Amino acid sequence: MTSQEARTSTAGRPLGWHKDYVTGSRPDLRVPVRRVHLTNGRDVRLYDTSGPYTDPAVETDVRRGLHPLRENWIIGRGDTEEYAGRPPRPEDDGIRHTSPRGGLRNLDAVFPGRSRQPRRGRGGAPVTQLAYARRGEITEEMEYVALRENVSPETVREEIAAGRAVLPANVNHPETEPMIIGKRFLVKVNANIGNSAVTSSIEEEVEKMTWATRWGADTVMDLSTGRNIHTTREWVLRNSPVPIGTVPLYQALEKVDGKAEELTWEIYKDTVVEQAEQGVDYMTVHAGVLLRYVPLTARRKTGIVSRGGSIMAAWCLAHHKESFLYENFEELCEILAAYDVTYSLGDGLRPGSIADANDEAQFAELKTLGELNRIAKRHDVQTMIEGPGHVPMHKIKENVELQQEICEEAPFYTLGPLTTDVAPGYDHITSGIGAAMIAWWGTAMLCYVTPKEHLGLPDRDDVKTGVITYKIAAHAADLAKGHPGAQEWDDALSDARFEFRWEDQFNLALDPDTARSFHDETLPAEPAKTAHFCSMCGPKFCSMKISQDIRRAHGDGLAAVDELEAEAGMAQKSKEFAASGHRVYLPLAD
Amino acid sequence: MTSQEARTSTAGRPLGWHKDYVTGSRPDLRVPVRRVHLTNGRDVRLYDTSGPYTDPAVETDVRRGLHPLRENWIIGRGDTEEYAGRPPRPEDDGIRHTSPRGGLRNLDAVFPGRSRQPRRGRGGAPVTQLAYARRGEITEEMEYVALRENVSPETVREEIAAGRAVLPANVNHPETEPMIIGKRFLVKVNANIGNSAVTSSIEEEVEKMTWATRWGADTVMDLSTGRNIHTTREWVLRNSPVPIGTVPLYQALEKVDGKAEELTWEIYKDTVVEQAEQGVDYMTVHAGVLLRYVPLTARRKTGIVSRGGSIMAAWCLAHHKESFLYENFEELCEILAAYDVTYSLGDGLRPGSIADANDEAQFAELKTLGELNRIAKRHDVQTMIEGPGHVPMHKIKENVELQQEICEEAPFYTLGPLTTDVAPGYDHITSGIGAAMIAWWGTAMLCYVTPKEHLGLPDRDDVKTGVITYKIAAHAADLAKGHPGAQEWDDALSDARFEFRWEDQFNLALDPDTARSFHDETLPAEPAKTAHFCSMCGPKFCSMKISQDIRRAHGDGLAAVDELEAEAGMAQKSKEFAASGHRVYLPLAD
Repeated sequence: MTSQEARTSTAGRPLGWHKDYVTGSRPDLRVPVRRVHLTNGRDVRLYDTSGPYTDPAVETDVRRGLHPLRENWIIGRGDTEEYAGRPPRPEDDGIRHTSPRGGLRNLDAVFPGRSRQPRRGRGGAPVTQLAYARRGEITEEMEYVALRENVSPETVREEIAAGRAVLPANVNHPETEPMIIGKRFLVKVNANIGNSAVTSSIEEEVEKMTWATRWGADTVMDLSTGRNIHTTREWVLRNSPVPIGTVPLYQALEKVDGKAEELTWEIYKDTVVEQAEQGVDYMTVHAGVLLRYVPLTARRKTGIVSRGGSIMAAWCLAHHKESFLYENFEELCEILAAYDVTYSLGDGLRPGSIADANDEAQFAELKTLGELNRIAKRHDVQTMIEGPGHVPMHKIKENVELQQEICEEAPFYTLGPLTTDVAPGYDHITSGIGAAMIAWWGTAMLCYVTPKEHLGLPDRDDVKTGVITYKIAAHAADLAKGHPGAQEWDDALSDARFEFRWEDQFNLALDPDTARSFHDETLPAEPAKTAHFCSMCGPKFCSMKISQDIRRAHGDGLAAVDELEAEAGMAQKSKEFAASGHRVYLPLAD
Repeated sequence: MTSQEARTSTAGRPLGWHKDYVTGSRPDLRVPVRRVHLTNGRDVRLYDTSGPYTDPAVETDVRRGLHPLRENWIIGRGDTEEYAGRPPRPEDDGIRHTSPRGGLRNLDAVFPGRSRQPRRGRGGAPVTQLAYARRGEITEEMEYVALRENVSPETVREEIAAGRAVLPANVNHPETEPMIIGKRFLVKVNANIGNSAVTSSIEEEVEKMTWATRWGADTVMDLSTGRNIHTTREWVLRNSPVPIGTVPLYQALEKVDGKAEELTWEIYKDTVVEQAEQGVDYMTVHAGVLLRYVPLTARRKTGIVSRGGSIMAAWCLAHHKESFLYENFEELCEILAAYDVTYSLGDGLRPGSIADANDEAQFAELKTLGELNRIAKRHDVQTMIEGPGHVPMHKIKENVELQQEICEEAPFYTLGPLTTDVAPGYDHITSGIGAAMIAWWGTAMLCYVTPKEHLGLPDRDDVKTGVITYKIAAHAADLAKGHPGAQEWDDALSDARFEFRWEDQFNLALDPDTARSFHDETLPAEPAKTAHFCSMCGPKFCSMKISQDIRRAHGDGLAAVDELEAEAGMAQKSKEFAASGHRVYLPLAD
């Protein structure tokens, strides 16, 4: 979205909202909000994930990247150092064998923005938000999310220190606008993007990322599996205002030409360092898939459906050895701690069908994730835990409760879950149902599912549908959890609806464009935007209008109509009413 | 859908399913099923609501209407009589004042099919399924739904006799294929259709009805409010294979030119008789909106949002009298019993926003509905109770539990509920979440909500989206309730998915067309329909394929990999594996 678009809708109509900022204790600590201006003179402040792209005062250019707003905070802490870093190699873009001359194939695709040295904790020391929180320090990032969430900075620090929340913020991704993931905060939504064998271009991926955040994605995972993985990620990171997550195993596998058994700890570790230097904020690590768990999946209806899980299972079986991720987990913790990369401990054995939900394989792995969570915390690495998958409604609560118990309340990050398998093409809905419920019961972040799940790669429309569906689930959960302030949004919209302030209703909607266009389909004329009725019932038959007229006509009188009056004196009341000349039912009489 | 279309999809491809029938104790008792033929030789039987329109052996003609399959059963019982009936009047189509010459304006629109005399219980005696069930009689209709639901006829009879289920089947709608609504049975879905001031044609309404049932609507409510109400309903009824519901108050209001205060019990009663003679199977009656409850809505955020509720509130206030529906409820029961019209006791004070959920007004009315339910049962009238509306997730369970307690387990029939107000344009989803949950906890039928809710009139696509979304919610609830057989459908689809039987996956899908077209978007070629991968990961990277290969390569060996082996003998195992020449990871090595 360009600056121009931020000021006007597609129809050229001035928007009833603008990008605003709440400034904290220092001038460069400015928290973005979407301020909706209502026609009754009030305004409503909404959480905003869209980054500088919706600020008309900021010129953005994807070839230069976003302003590194956290850079001074990171440097100011004085605990990191720049270093030469690992030079990019052709195989980083998955072209080891097919490009024998070496060198990045698409040289013109190399990110042209400012070149920078990577940064890490001095002497490899942990520079994580968890380490600071445990030391009692409130970082700029913590203050930022406190303003964003309307809580005290101390609450943020406490939740991070206790391991109940994570603030993903790699020191090499200074462009990110800090956000927090934890059950005491607003429920967050992740959107997946990524090219694949059936390739999409680098530009498309960057556009999908800005598009997803435009509609409310709080984080984005780049799950690219094809060519140009490294280069695509660089463009995405330099232009992303939200934390970026990855699954390093996918890229490592490309480096060994897709042969799982050729994977080694060294290749994997090298990939993690490569990505940590680029600025990846959180990484999915399937270290809980142990050799002895693989047989537990043999009698499943859909086996192992996690890609990472199946790769690690194949590796374990091929070598008949324990997972190299599990065996080297402590070393991995040390690497992640030096960049503040957050763990997303993957559920490689998550169920892929209703039949496989909550089975022995899933819960066995969860126990191991609990063990790994404790190890990660010892190394000051922020950690969240991934969850399923496909789960019927009556088994969802057990999932959250077990995860919270076994993983000491580490943030739960779930994919859906899908509550039935029978609706391919509508899995944003089958899973949106499960997502709302699991979030109500304690999941901190929801990974979206698009309508194309199980069938194909999501396009731009699918990404938007997925994000909006999951924002609905997240907000429904915020309401059910009684999150302070959550209901104000609903109240503002319902007030607008009851008072026929159509423009306010559109501007407050999760998707103003769709709400407006649906209304325009039946009543396109501009006067209809202030009409005291809508296209469903027409002017003579609107319950809200009748309801308002009742209130207006009777005013205080209403309060006096009580049970006693209902039994006595009705005839008298009726006469009074007729004498007053008031028509109760003005709208229908018109 | 024509017979030809039933045999082939839009692309001319033969469908992998056909309309079949399960025959009961008499040859004219044939229960329709959708039989899906899988490529592995098995077949799966699914519930089918689409009526004769999907049977290539049946010639349908909307100008003649459907075959009256229940006629002989009704006549055979010998307890009804034909009579002259109430002649149609111009005002039945809402044209009292504008057509002074009298007569139905659109004479060419009058239903041209067979003319019939209305039928009612001899001497006004109750001829309801409830009366039969209480006498211990198992009707043909009960046997029909028993076959449809895979339960014993005695179970059906018991549930109806106890008032826990209703079988809406007006003796004047012999075309209907019997179905049952109750918490022990599959969760049902209602779709609303109906023209309005911004009018749609009679043909469009008939087409919306067949379209809705094509996708799974179990009942259809005709909520027309404009002209030609009587005539539209006649066409809909004569062509509908599912029970038809209405809100007689809407038509009664048209008869008094929209002036609520001019409504009388006589006009209302006349309208009920008119509709009962036509064959309406269930009627929403807002008899629970009492004068003394109206003030309870005065401080609400969105007042009264039910049209029926607001009309009755306006009437009560205008006359300062108790509701004529409440005052004449016993007489209304006698009328409904003589035709077997089922009550749907309307929740005229349902909340229209999150802020108003579960408030005093709503629960006061519910208590009255409980009282009316008992009266209706005394008159042998089948009864269900309508429910909200807008309810945040944490207040949904209380709604069902209170309704079940107060209304002695009468079937609950809810609209959504919407779990947040902030997403106009997506209220099929905000409400689909609530619908799945409330159905899991005991709601028997869900009234769908389309994407156009609050914004405009649903078109054909919106009707489909609404029905599919609600079928998902209903099936998710069937799974969570452990309904016998519900999971077989999911299992069949997941088996097909795991075994890359793409055509089976499409044919088993709730919406085969959409599933197929999404798949075709990325991999359109016909061979891709048998490919052992999909467009998401491409051929080298499919977890399901890896999982299958693991299973194939290791076979029984997998069971032997247990914890002990994981700790010892790994090197030896690995050597054995290498010697065997098996590649574990065939897909990635290709």
